[in-house]
Amino acid sequence: MPSYTAPTKDMQFVLHDLLKISESDIPGYSDLEADFTSAVLEEAGKITSEVLAPLNVVGDTEGCVLENGVVRTPTGFKEAFDQVREGGWTGLDMPEDFGGQGLPYVVATATGEMFSAANQAFTMYQGLTHGAASAILAHGSDEQKNTYLPNMVSCEWTGTMNLTEPHCGTDLGLMRTKAVPQGDGSYKISGQKIFISAGEHEMSSNIIHLVLAKIPGGPDGIKGVSLFIVPKFMVNEDGTPGARNGVSCGKIEEKMGIHGNSTCVMNYDEATGFLLGEEHKGMRAMFTMMNEARIGVGMQGLAQAEAAYQNALIYAKDRLQGRDVTGVKNPDGPADPLIVHPDIRRNLMDQKSFIEGARAFMLWGAMMIDRSHRLGDKDADGLISLLTPVVKGFLTDEGYQATVQAQQVYGGHGYIEEWGMSQFTRDARIAMIYEGANGVQALDLVGRKLAQDGGKHVMAFFDLVKNFIKDNSENEALKADFLEPLKQASKDLQAAGMFFMQNGMKNPNAALSGSYDFMHLFGHVCLGLMWAQMAKAAQEALDAGASDKAFYETKLATGRYYMARRLPATGMHLARINSGADPVMALDADQF
Amino acid sequence: MPSYTAPTKDMQFVLHDLLKISESDIPGYSDLEADFTSAVLEEAGKITSEVLAPLNVVGDTEGCVLENGVVRTPTGFKEAFDQVREGGWTGLDMPEDFGGQGLPYVVATATGEMFSAANQAFTMYQGLTHGAASAILAHGSDEQKNTYLPNMVSCEWTGTMNLTEPHCGTDLGLMRTKAVPQGDGSYKISGQKIFISAGEHEMSSNIIHLVLAKIPGGPDGIKGVSLFIVPKFMVNEDGTPGARNGVSCGKIEEKMGIHGNSTCVMNYDEATGFLLGEEHKGMRAMFTMMNEARIGVGMQGLAQAEAAYQNALIYAKDRLQGRDVTGVKNPDGPADPLIVHPDIRRNLMDQKSFIEGARAFMLWGAMMIDRSHRLGDKDADGLISLLTPVVKGFLTDEGYQATVQAQQVYGGHGYIEEWGMSQFTRDARIAMIYEGANGVQALDLVGRKLAQDGGKHVMAFFDLVKNFIKDNSENEALKADFLEPLKQASKDLQAAGMFFMQNGMKNPNAALSGSYDFMHLFGHVCLGLMWAQMAKAAQEALDAGASDKAFYETKLATGRYYMARRLPATGMHLARINSGADPVMALDADQF
Repeated sequence: MPSYTAPTKDMQFVLHDLLKISESDIPGYSDLEADFTSAVLEEAGKITSEVLAPLNVVGDTEGCVLENGVVRTPTGFKEAFDQVREGGWTGLDMPEDFGGQGLPYVVATATGEMFSAANQAFTMYQGLTHGAASAILAHGSDEQKNTYLPNMVSCEWTGTMNLTEPHCGTDLGLMRTKAVPQGDGSYKISGQKIFISAGEHEMSSNIIHLVLAKIPGGPDGIKGVSLFIVPKFMVNEDGTPGARNGVSCGKIEEKMGIHGNSTCVMNYDEATGFLLGEEHKGMRAMFTMMNEARIGVGMQGLAQAEAAYQNALIYAKDRLQGRDVTGVKNPDGPADPLIVHPDIRRNLMDQKSFIEGARAFMLWGAMMIDRSHRLGDKDADGLISLLTPVVKGFLTDEGYQATVQAQQVYGGHGYIEEWGMSQFTRDARIAMIYEGANGVQALDLVGRKLAQDGGKHVMAFFDLVKNFIKDNSENEALKADFLEPLKQASKDLQAAGMFFMQNGMKNPNAALSGSYDFMHLFGHVCLGLMWAQMAKAAQEALDAGASDKAFYETKLATGRYYMARRLPATGMHLARINSGADPVMALDADQF
Repeated sequence: MPSYTAPTKDMQFVLHDLLKISESDIPGYSDLEADFTSAVLEEAGKITSEVLAPLNVVGDTEGCVLENGVVRTPTGFKEAFDQVREGGWTGLDMPEDFGGQGLPYVVATATGEMFSAANQAFTMYQGLTHGAASAILAHGSDEQKNTYLPNMVSCEWTGTMNLTEPHCGTDLGLMRTKAVPQGDGSYKISGQKIFISAGEHEMSSNIIHLVLAKIPGGPDGIKGVSLFIVPKFMVNEDGTPGARNGVSCGKIEEKMGIHGNSTCVMNYDEATGFLLGEEHKGMRAMFTMMNEARIGVGMQGLAQAEAAYQNALIYAKDRLQGRDVTGVKNPDGPADPLIVHPDIRRNLMDQKSFIEGARAFMLWGAMMIDRSHRLGDKDADGLISLLTPVVKGFLTDEGYQATVQAQQVYGGHGYIEEWGMSQFTRDARIAMIYEGANGVQALDLVGRKLAQDGGKHVMAFFDLVKNFIKDNSENEALKADFLEPLKQASKDLQAAGMFFMQNGMKNPNAALSGSYDFMHLFGHVCLGLMWAQMAKAAQEALDAGASDKAFYETKLATGRYYMARRLPATGMHLARINSGADPVMALDADQF
């Protein structure tokens, strides 16, 4: 059975050597000394590796079962959820007023990676709750906040988000679910929603559904969509769950993975709902959840890659097969371990250099979110808004690919469920799809985010890269291995942006045909920037005589791998982008 | 439920417009007129789409069950197998002397793609049998041939190949299974083999296991391995199955996919076996099966991609979601079909251009095998031997990727088992692993095949590309869109080969660190060459006033896509290769 060990040391490196969080001016960050974050990460590492990771396979094997309207989660999930609640993990970055710990998002992001890595299907129950609570926090009335948040922050009640219907996913304007006003401020919600993660289960005493629906007579399409709070049990005056509302689980979907999470068809049959935010402004409110969810899903890509990589590495060191071509390494054994072989290393280094770069990218992004929320920094907000589709699309695509590579290290054993490597790829696969399929992320990036605020945020990103290169141009340790590849990759990104500007106005398809490649190109430049910055931090630690020399040297070598072996992908993506719309759009639909 | 339609028209194009098979001097090819192959392909198309494809999901859902030593295959498999046998499909390219049809391998390859696409798990029962029969045909005594082949050619009896043991897969020298000579020409085989596809089932009246084992006292390692025929039921003098032999299925593995095939742990307990070929020359005999199997597995990559693509295309035309940014295409509907969106097209064109290029590559390769076997052409033999790891490694990696992309077109529905798209990726995943994991293919390519016969065959490949470009240099229709990209890609391949030559002698790791990228680089150049040749054939057909103009124009447009959008990957692979061993090998094993 696979194991999981939380990468606390690497996280500490990113938080303190790279991001130097405790020196930041963001409110709350001055408390985040290395000792403090270390204590939090170690605790999170313990519960995730000891309690959640062992339940990962159980969840996959047993799945969720619907019987007489009640959903049974896998053995051990309920008890584990109690432990997670008791540890206060569900409200780590939630306001203290509602029972949270009030810690910055950057800390919740680090521990969140661990939870997702140890057990993605399990962690979704609290993840969805967090997203729903955030939406209520941002858009709810004081009464709504007081009614729902304390129990949601503690996960005594869990939450869901209900968007998709059988005939519409991305295109929510086609939605049919109706919300009829009752004159008393409430609405009757009727319709069917599908793919509702954590839609029904027995682990919490209430479930607070956030449901998109249309109020009859409102504007057509997406502009007529409103968001509603629909509790499974109506909340009594004293705050306890009362009568059952008209919402029920019609079916649990059979999925490729994340079997431990109950993905439900939810039927709303004149269920009582309460408007969250304004009428017909449901998408705005939903995007509060959605943006958070997209960052969280990007993290799932990274997390599954980390979990799979750890096990691939153990296997590569353990499994004896063949001999090192440059000379026997394990003369007392019948063969050398897999890890002596160059192609196994290529495989492992592809994973490792992605994972560590992605982790830095995630935590840097989380710091921008804190900067936006806690300091009201509009530039940080614009930058993370630009990068959200990159986090979601790039990290989940590459994260999935990493799990496939990890599985490959096991040879035939990777295909057998018993070894657990198949689950990592099956679970990771969903992250490329939900919260907006990655093609939609690419569209969001190129079609909306690039030009936002007059292109100000993408220019700010380029400046970031340019300034880093300029400020370190005398640094011989970085120059050839880090700065030059970064410069080239960034040039490719700028050239792609230029192509879109010159061609996209005349023909939007010229830009949209390259959107997916642009998302990946952008992702590589982000990770290249992270690696250049991490190399600098590692070099500084070595220069300062850090005791753990091997750690920092490994960091530098891993970074060199990324720059030499992963970053050249930018040239390919640029070539694809530069070929424009013609090759993509040449065929009529019936010529396919 | 997904459907499958055999791509007979595209196959006919490759066989006749591109390869012009009936004009070839290969014995048997003059019979392969377009009318004849069309009749064969249509018949194969019928049985695969009508009988096998509907059983694909059944096989996935039910799997195989072991009860009291007997393996039950999924509902309908036995009856379908009877139909396949009755149709004569199992011995299409087997000698008429043993009940086969004696058709060239190129025809069996075309129909084989259909069988694998319609139902990979099912088709493996006959595929393994074919491989085992080929080994007996090549290495068996006349008595062995007469005893086993007629029933194996008809699939009255099926076959297996037994290599892997729990502790050894790639490194077969570590094998522990023993074969003790009994003095009467027979051996007693004892040991455990794992991952034995079609190892036990009730669809045939006997199973002929080919088993690798060591004769005690023989040479150490791989040089002491011999191959044995071990029938499930001993064969009576009259040729009928007799007493049960000491071989049994200990367990069926739970796998990620191909659930319809029984992947068995096989226990040999003093089972009676008969030497196939010479003592200690088992690997040579096994490679007869293995090379055939590797080509066949490459075909599975293509086949799953085709099946997945067909369904993605249907969905993309059917599912209404969003509007074409350049103007509404379906004004009477609530939204436009997915296929109007550039990123959906990018996705579909990635698949389509790969699939059609791969199909040409497979059939061209099959023609080389016929040239080798039927004409004794050593050059053709050398070239296909060089390209076998490319067929296996590149087509299965890219084929898998194509199934992932096809699944992505479905959004959330792609993750739900009900829609069947998950099965394509789960089934396709094994092809990257079995018959030598793709890393082993890359090692075979760079470590053995490149330098074989003094590098003669890779030079022949380069000449093929060079001559095609030279011969068509005046062809304005091909120049910019096909010849120039092909030239650039081929240059990248040559540069990579040069890097290996200059650095691999001093340090084998410098070459082996780039082996995987080289395999992909080579694959792209092969598909680039195929597309340039197909473009020429399509252009000629158009110039000759072909009635089906749209077909040939589509072919040209699809080729242009490959050249513009897929082929630029060669530059990235070259950059990775040129970075050499340092980034890959920098870390000590304990630094990971």
